[in-house]
Amino acid sequence: MSQEPQSIAPWASPVARARIAEVAAGFTDLSLDGVTGTVRRALGEHARRFDDEGIVLYAGTNVMSPAAQRVSEPLVSARPSMGWPGEKYQTGLDQLDILEVLAPTLVARLVGARFAEVRSQSATFANLAVYTALAAPGDTIAVLPQRAGGHTSHHAVGAPGVRGLRVVDLPYDVGALDVDLHALPEFLEDQRPRVVVIGASLLLFPHRVEAIREITEAAGAVLVYDASHMAGLVAAGRFQRPLAEGAQLLTFSTYKSFGGPPGGVIATNDADLAERVSTMVFPGLTANYDAGRLAPLAVTAAEIHQDGGAYADRCVANAKAFAAALHDEGFTVAGADRGFTESHHVAVDAHLLGGGRAAAARLAAAGIYLSAVGLPWQNDDDPAGDRGLRIGTQEVTRRGFGPDELRQTAAWMAEVLLRDADPDAIRKAAADLRTGLLAR
Amino acid sequence: MSQEPQSIAPWASPVARARIAEVAAGFTDLSLDGVTGTVRRALGEHARRFDDEGIVLYAGTNVMSPAAQRVSEPLVSARPSMGWPGEKYQTGLDQLDILEVLAPTLVARLVGARFAEVRSQSATFANLAVYTALAAPGDTIAVLPQRAGGHTSHHAVGAPGVRGLRVVDLPYDVGALDVDLHALPEFLEDQRPRVVVIGASLLLFPHRVEAIREITEAAGAVLVYDASHMAGLVAAGRFQRPLAEGAQLLTFSTYKSFGGPPGGVIATNDADLAERVSTMVFPGLTANYDAGRLAPLAVTAAEIHQDGGAYADRCVANAKAFAAALHDEGFTVAGADRGFTESHHVAVDAHLLGGGRAAAARLAAAGIYLSAVGLPWQNDDDPAGDRGLRIGTQEVTRRGFGPDELRQTAAWMAEVLLRDADPDAIRKAAADLRTGLLAR
Repeated sequence: MSQEPQSIAPWASPVARARIAEVAAGFTDLSLDGVTGTVRRALGEHARRFDDEGIVLYAGTNVMSPAAQRVSEPLVSARPSMGWPGEKYQTGLDQLDILEVLAPTLVARLVGARFAEVRSQSATFANLAVYTALAAPGDTIAVLPQRAGGHTSHHAVGAPGVRGLRVVDLPYDVGALDVDLHALPEFLEDQRPRVVVIGASLLLFPHRVEAIREITEAAGAVLVYDASHMAGLVAAGRFQRPLAEGAQLLTFSTYKSFGGPPGGVIATNDADLAERVSTMVFPGLTANYDAGRLAPLAVTAAEIHQDGGAYADRCVANAKAFAAALHDEGFTVAGADRGFTESHHVAVDAHLLGGGRAAAARLAAAGIYLSAVGLPWQNDDDPAGDRGLRIGTQEVTRRGFGPDELRQTAAWMAEVLLRDADPDAIRKAAADLRTGLLAR
Repeated sequence: MSQEPQSIAPWASPVARARIAEVAAGFTDLSLDGVTGTVRRALGEHARRFDDEGIVLYAGTNVMSPAAQRVSEPLVSARPSMGWPGEKYQTGLDQLDILEVLAPTLVARLVGARFAEVRSQSATFANLAVYTALAAPGDTIAVLPQRAGGHTSHHAVGAPGVRGLRVVDLPYDVGALDVDLHALPEFLEDQRPRVVVIGASLLLFPHRVEAIREITEAAGAVLVYDASHMAGLVAAGRFQRPLAEGAQLLTFSTYKSFGGPPGGVIATNDADLAERVSTMVFPGLTANYDAGRLAPLAVTAAEIHQDGGAYADRCVANAKAFAAALHDEGFTVAGADRGFTESHHVAVDAHLLGGGRAAAARLAAAGIYLSAVGLPWQNDDDPAGDRGLRIGTQEVTRRGFGPDELRQTAAWMAEVLLRDADPDAIRKAAADLRTGLLAR
């Protein structure tokens, strides 16, 4: 090598720099053969862990269906398709026209929208397109606090900061686990946001969308519902129907509970809003939008429709059963007074377990993967960090888990976090459980 | 269907609406089986056209190598990996750590940079991250005019508009096919841009980077070189070395001449700039950056290194041979006084052929795919639209074309555009040529 970088990110934390150096020290052969070997070993071990052996309770992921995987063609992604069918910049793409009409048609049908813009490469970019269409630099938007599931792409450190927006936290009612409806009118009067964003990265119970819209409407703000996590339920007609209930725009991610390829969607019934956000997606934020995503997206949307809500129902039933099992094991599970959850999400307060991050790390050693999350009853600046554990059942449900497997998983979590069991033994038992389900 | 949208984009042009309606009318069966069948037929016909039969001269595409295709795993893309190795939000991703250190290390090595940020899903987002890091809403950036290859992501309709920037066109020297070095100092003094962007979507000869940097440095602007089209040559040490010659930041797309998966890179030797742009990529513009891209990116980078510039040299030699053949056939080829091109790009002035768009459409009917492009000697608001045809040899070179096949292609283009030949016959002959090369 002519020039060896000392580190790919010397500005990162000491912990990160140490890990980066450790990884880089393993690169003894940067020839094509050496690199190919390193890449294949990493992919193989990654797949073994997640696709064969681990119990993935992380809320923001999923595995595409076999049918969607079969139509994932990497070569399509490298062929840009710019502009509407019939007036594209490139020639010869009339077969992509079909996917470009089919995918939004199917996605719009699922979420009860007249329009679905599917070209955003991610929900973060979908949100950025919405902000750009609706607010100018210096304008204000109001979003859920981070401790109440407000996503990075709602906060100033993320997409709104790119647009130069002022971001304020919506008043939040910890008892209702929703926006504080009583405080909202005065808050909006004071802050005058152009946009109000609801829909959270942890959402146990539906937002009271109709009531919120009544208030945002009076204040002249556009109500956006980010259903990135809930999209699989919403698309199946479960949990709630944000557009029918009053949200003017619905954004979401297509690879989490929706179960398709990565990507973002913006859906609406308002033709004017649809045009404005669509123009921001292209040409505002994309040239090549990666058409390779459209085939698995269309197939996934057709599967959800055909499924008739059965998968979504299993995800929710699994979440309820899992939450009850965790409660029975002695965990502090959020929403206990309301049946724990109405979605595929479950939240555990890990304050007495050393915080969410430490607990998640111990579970990872046992082959159980999830993440820390802020909880509405903590302070944003809690020195202990996020105090909750966030769980989503969307992936294990697709992997064949039912209440029995989840009760077993809850017992293992209790052994690791409450009774200091050896994580190695549990990791092996978890792999046996997964392998047994794969063999069915 | 409970709700049939009349059109996915009623605001689009009449031509687009007609094509969208025509496509939608073909959707007679939106069941899962029907959709899967429609998707597979579209993908199959698309692949037949581009991967088996057509002659793709479009400058902004390519086909990944077999080795890179073999490590493209769609399931990796749906597993978010947020934060640096060692401090990620998600657990269990230590195998992705390896790809997250390996890919930027290999990419930085190729382009002669200390730092390469590879998490942007596209070069458009890479450019947006750069603008956001270096300029505030209301600030000015200076870019190449559209007719001189300035990309959408450089202009106000694209990424700079999202950031709320004022965009001005750099003075351009049509004779030199480069920024006007004489006019530049006074222009920068007047306009005071924070950022100057060079690097074009049509670039026949290297920019005079050293001279431009001297002037931007004096004016206090940061010089960014967008090598989206040139990246495969730059990475092979050909054409020019923008960072070594003085550009402070290099952005590029990884799927065009670079030949990898879609994605964007920001490279630099300046640790402070690296940190600022990296922070804008994450958490500014991404949550899930799509880690599935990293494996094929790393393998592609290792292939380019191992190849030692042979592919890049073939691309350039093919472009020179093709340009000469087109000239001999009677086309007006740009850069005739300078050997036509020093890159893999070739430009034909199609003014007398009805403009670039009409000529490209006629070639598409003959199975030859390329695009219109603005030419520096036209007006931005020419009612005839882009008057040029843009050609890139990066894909046909990978498909095995040499000077013989390109002379044949030039002859076919002359038959279609200069002698009104039947496009069907040529399309069949082109398919035979491609099929013959595939069989070798």
